[in-house]
Formats: sequence, C-alpha cells, structure tokens
Amino acid sequence: MKTLILHAESFSYTPVAKEIRSAEEASTNTINLGRCLVVFVAVEAGDESKSGLYELFSEQLGSALREVGENVLVLYPFVHLTDSPAKPLVALEILKQLELKLRDRGTHAMRAPFGWTKKFSISVFGHPLAERSFRF
Amino acid sequence: MKTLILHAESFSYTPVAKEIRSAEEASTNTINLGRCLVVFVAVEAGDESKSGLYELFSEQLGSALREVGENVLVLYPFVHLTDSPAKPLVALEILKQLELKLRDRGTHAMRAPFGWTKKFSISVFGHPLAERSFRF
Repeated sequence: MKTLILHAESFSYTPVAKEIRSAEEASTNTINLGRCLVVFVAVEAGDESKSGLYELFSEQLGSALREVGENVLVLYPFVHLTDSPAKPLVALEILKQLELKLRDRGTHAMRAPFGWTKKFSISVFGHPLAERSFRF
Repeated sequence: MKTLILHAESFSYTPVAKEIRSAEEASTNTINLGRCLVVFVAVEAGDESKSGLYELFSEQLGSALREVGENVLVLYPFVHLTDSPAKPLVALEILKQLELKLRDRGTHAMRAPFGWTKKFSISVFGHPLAERSFRF
C-alpha cells in the first residue's frame, strides 16, 4: 500500500461519474472540508495478506495527525501511486477497514467514494511535515 | 523517474523556505496559474544514465498536453513519489534539461524551485485524463 499524505488548509471534492463497474454507490454532492490530513491511498496486490496492516496504518496516521495538530482525515482512493493495484473489490474492502480502524481510535475519518472520477481542490500548507509519503 | 500529472483548472504555489543546502535561488513570490498540466516529478537514482530520457519525456508530455487541449506545463519537484531519489544536484540538472526540452517543442514550460518547502493550491478537473502517472 502506498500513500501520499498532504496537510490541507482546505479540501473539497465532487464525485462526477462512476469510472469502473465495481464503483460503490455515492452521492454527487460536493464535500467541503477545512483543515485536515488528506491521505491519497493506492491499495496494492498482496495487501490483503499483510498481517497487522490496519493497526500499523492507524497508528502511523494517528501519529501523523498529532504531529500536525489535526483530528480529521480523508481517505482518498488514488491508484496512480502504484504499478500493481489490488483488485477493485479487495481495495474497497481494505479502505473500509482502514476507515473503521481510524474511527475506533477516535479519529474523524471519512472516505471518498471508490471507483469514481472525481474533481478536487486542495490547499496544502507550506511546512516541512505538510507533504509525506508512507508505505505499508 | 516517477511523475504524477494533474490537469488543473487553477494552480498556485509559494516558495516558503529553503529545505536543503543545495536549494536553488528563488523568489518567495506566489505564482498563480490558470489551466495547465502540473507535473509532480521525482527524479530517481540512475535517471542520469538513461539514454533518450529527455526526448521520451517531452514527447509523452507533449501528447498529454494535446489530449487535454493545454500548452502550459509546470514541473513541480516532488520527491515523495519515490523511495530512491537522485542526489539533489543531479535531480536539479535533470529538471532543468526537461524544462529546456519542453520549451524547445514550443510548450510554455516552467519549473517550481527545487529544494524549497512550498505551499500550493490546486483545483483538478473531474475527467478521466485529469489524473495520470507516467514512469520514465
């Protein structure tokens, strides 16, 4: 699993159209958020058999949130970070589990819909921890 | 070399502070752009010995520009896309060459300063070619 993590001053996205057959159901309403961590995630083939993945992910993202003083996090599916993506239904299930695990820790976690073409706008802070990349 | 290519409705960035000793000289003025392709680039170890790299890059990016009907392109150094970055001075030289090669083709290419912490804002279109990733 590859991630790109941006500390946003503001973030908004709009699901435009389903991109793949296994896209989940979603509203096409625009979601507007203020300060948050946006976690662009590419789930990779083989991630489903990595033990402790959800715990490691939620711990590291929990630390990343504390380091920038935030508690709101958006999981944003983003296949472009990898050459070996997981199958769509596997990726979706893993993203759902990551969201639940983060919520269990008290994080205000949300998930942008999987399998959709979306437009988005982001303003990224200009400090040394505003752009990071974690591999799991 | 890894790239993440976003078709932007608008893009702006502000160099905030030098991040590394080999950062190039740059103004801290905000650069504001309208429609363009933003190419986040991670130059990788070994890229300096890939023959035909600049030609391949400028051809593929030239096609990408045509496909979305744009002629403005920003090269934005972004080390977070790779685990094996090139040494800073090598990366900077390659980025300069890519910029020149694109300009030779008639593209309005510009380059965000290398080695700086920067803040940025981007609005990305919501069509199927708005987010892409090319490896070179």
